[in-house]
Amino acid sequence: MTETAPRPTLEAVAARAGVSRATVSRVVNGGDGVREPLVERVRKAVEELGYVPNQAARSLVTRRHDAVAVVVAEPETRVFADPFFALQLRGISKELTAHDNQLVLLLTEGRDDHARVGRYLAGGHVDGALVFSLHLDDPLPGLIQRAGVPTVFGGRPGWSGDRQGVVYVDSDNRGGARDAVRHLVGLGRSRIAHIAGALDQTSAVDRLDGYRDVMVDADPRLIVEGDFTPAGGERAMRELLARCPDLDAVFAANDLTASGALRVLRESGRRVPDDVAVVGFDDMLPVAEQTDPPLTTVRQDIEEMGRLMARLLLRGLDRHVGEQGIGAAPSSVVLPTTLVRRASA
Amino acid sequence: MTETAPRPTLEAVAARAGVSRATVSRVVNGGDGVREPLVERVRKAVEELGYVPNQAARSLVTRRHDAVAVVVAEPETRVFADPFFALQLRGISKELTAHDNQLVLLLTEGRDDHARVGRYLAGGHVDGALVFSLHLDDPLPGLIQRAGVPTVFGGRPGWSGDRQGVVYVDSDNRGGARDAVRHLVGLGRSRIAHIAGALDQTSAVDRLDGYRDVMVDADPRLIVEGDFTPAGGERAMRELLARCPDLDAVFAANDLTASGALRVLRESGRRVPDDVAVVGFDDMLPVAEQTDPPLTTVRQDIEEMGRLMARLLLRGLDRHVGEQGIGAAPSSVVLPTTLVRRASA
Repeated sequence: MTETAPRPTLEAVAARAGVSRATVSRVVNGGDGVREPLVERVRKAVEELGYVPNQAARSLVTRRHDAVAVVVAEPETRVFADPFFALQLRGISKELTAHDNQLVLLLTEGRDDHARVGRYLAGGHVDGALVFSLHLDDPLPGLIQRAGVPTVFGGRPGWSGDRQGVVYVDSDNRGGARDAVRHLVGLGRSRIAHIAGALDQTSAVDRLDGYRDVMVDADPRLIVEGDFTPAGGERAMRELLARCPDLDAVFAANDLTASGALRVLRESGRRVPDDVAVVGFDDMLPVAEQTDPPLTTVRQDIEEMGRLMARLLLRGLDRHVGEQGIGAAPSSVVLPTTLVRRASA
Repeated sequence: MTETAPRPTLEAVAARAGVSRATVSRVVNGGDGVREPLVERVRKAVEELGYVPNQAARSLVTRRHDAVAVVVAEPETRVFADPFFALQLRGISKELTAHDNQLVLLLTEGRDDHARVGRYLAGGHVDGALVFSLHLDDPLPGLIQRAGVPTVFGGRPGWSGDRQGVVYVDSDNRGGARDAVRHLVGLGRSRIAHIAGALDQTSAVDRLDGYRDVMVDADPRLIVEGDFTPAGGERAMRELLARCPDLDAVFAANDLTASGALRVLRESGRRVPDDVAVVGFDDMLPVAEQTDPPLTTVRQDIEEMGRLMARLLLRGLDRHVGEQGIGAAPSSVVLPTTLVRRASA
């Protein structure tokens, strides 16, 4: 016959540490005003007795802050202008809140501020980090690695070197791009242009690769680099029309780019889809439904990507703590995409 | 003749603390992997010698994290949908970046999460907090007070009790509202309605008071509560037209509310400003310029409010550290507003 030991009480911890019940309570609840040696004694007693009354006490034992940093490698102005980030943050926020973890968004004005972000991450203020919108030459991954903070990336990181242990959530950008271009080919289009995203991001590179998979001998003048913004889409579309006035279709790297391209096509007197068919990427609402005409596009579930990033990180942190040795280490996830047909193609 | 002592070196700190140069470096740079007793010894040596090589060392001496939390008492979805928050954050971000402080945005899904925000603030992860969009019955101010974190509020906090030491940045909401309504009176309007903001926020209450200052005997049916959103403006405008079809002017509590009201007025066949003149509040661009017709409104400098909040907090923190006993404690600031005349009134 085995006996189950009674669950240790707050009083038992106080007795063991030789302090008052109030002091234990204050330490356990993360409050101020308790001197370091006393904190240490209470912690020791908590650990020895295995006292786990609530979230706060758990944090003491596990050294968890129940806080996760989100780092977006873009200036704050873009984070607020592009609904992509709001959607991804919404998914992250819901998942973290469901696990009572605080979302700590670290905003930067520009790349010069990334060193400071690295310092904050290294400072022991969060349990892990979710990082997205990385650029190829970004110093952030290195800074984060040195900070020693468990991290999940949004989008496959593009830096070279050791990929061991790197966990990311991504969409099947290359496969989705192939579907988009095949759809245009199926409509009988042959002069299919591509407005790429910023090519220092892997999502842009993968979508360009998908375009090339189908358009094996594409006229290189049909490819112009944009920057994932409506203004970039306008610029690129003007350049394409100047270079190849006979183009009959455009695959844009995202919906915002497509919305800019549609404006320029309309200005130039071309009918969409009759003269030029257009396909976007994202299925970002309301953008994709409100363009004129509504946009055929490749759907990726951005909010779900955010949710998954948070879930993988929290799962990894639980393993890290090692309370349960079970369960495999989290590995990267690539989500499928689907073509959504509207009037533009 | 006085001699200036040579600036203490990293080596001198290492010798004094009896540890290696690498250990000092690691402690000074906030890195992990150094045991607490060693950290304490290094800190003591740093303080005794007055060793200040860089930002990180300064943080050790001053106990500063060079990080400031921003708490918006709204669900994350509203923070991203309302450009007001983006503008205020931009001002805050610029000011904090200029002083090499990290902006730590604490996102919440709802009011239930505020206790967790309080715990994070109390956990010693930031030097201070900037808090805006408070509601009257919000538990945040109490949680923040208990957390013992220096705080500057955006907008006059509305809670009752001790206001000693509360620092806030606000616009002259009441004076601005008076200007708006006086302008409408000057145009010969007499049936002037008001769509208020959410009346659990002091900005909404102050604007309503300004309206009442001018419309002393206003028909109470001319006042309807909105919620600072376009949808709220639509709802309120419909109710106003049902109650008082003879109204000839509307003062809306902000530009988003006015944009909703304008849509409903147009639907109802009323001409703006001929039949009904409309004035907003904020001068939020591009909203105020893109309404049909463009909006006469009360301008407040939202980005500047954010900048000032950050500046007052940092100034207060410098006093707190006590390196320089000079300078008065920061006190609250109320910024003036100006009427911007466009076509709607």
